[in-house]
Amino acid sequence: MEANDKQAVNKEFTEECGKILAAVSDALYAIGGKWKLMIIIAMARGNNRFTELQRQVKGISARVLSNELKELELNGFIVKKVSVGYPVSIEYELLPYSHTLEEVVGAMTRWGMQHREKIKNDIAASGASKS
Amino acid sequence: MEANDKQAVNKEFTEECGKILAAVSDALYAIGGKWKLMIIIAMARGNNRFTELQRQVKGISARVLSNELKELELNGFIVKKVSVGYPVSIEYELLPYSHTLEEVVGAMTRWGMQHREKIKNDIAASGASKS
Repeated sequence: MEANDKQAVNKEFTEECGKILAAVSDALYAIGGKWKLMIIIAMARGNNRFTELQRQVKGISARVLSNELKELELNGFIVKKVSVGYPVSIEYELLPYSHTLEEVVGAMTRWGMQHREKIKNDIAASGASKS
Repeated sequence: MEANDKQAVNKEFTEECGKILAAVSDALYAIGGKWKLMIIIAMARGNNRFTELQRQVKGISARVLSNELKELELNGFIVKKVSVGYPVSIEYELLPYSHTLEEVVGAMTRWGMQHREKIKNDIAASGASKS
């Protein structure tokens, strides 16, 4: 390959890498962190009230859940519905845009499950080699 | 549906939700945060030295990159190779286990790209409605 061709290929490769990194960075900015995907998953399975979400998403504090819900609303994933009456009832609902995350959630779920299996096997193997 | 049947369905639904949340939580624990996937993507595209990684993964500090590389090594995604000689050369290489992340990276990349398009269109639309 000529030096110029190689340089062109390298440039394209670096640009492509930059594009993928930018896309993943955008995704992490919107849905990254410890909680956002978890909250969306819990909502997709019928947990629509603050207390239900807090019970389902283990370890989240009320303050953090409240902030995360606000950010999810700002990004168009969910909507907060307040029904007037007594007592006032507040429910959070997923908006259609949240469904665009199904592929990401599916991939993360499958990977997390196989990763847990791997860790279990690694621990079993290291136990067996010690005994 | 009988009350007992409904309870059984609810229980199964809650258990399934719990399993998905646990899997995604495991995944986020191992590959969550702002940098790990980005580092793996940059390495998969031929950036194997510390300085290359720091240049490619925009905004990461040397201290954070160093910590992230250590954690990626502990989790079996990469290996640090030190070749003796003068000067000593250090390179990071992906291990086969990192390839199990391809589906997750692909899903995140596609979602990030469409999300960027959506944001652009939202901004264009809000600009048009103002003028």
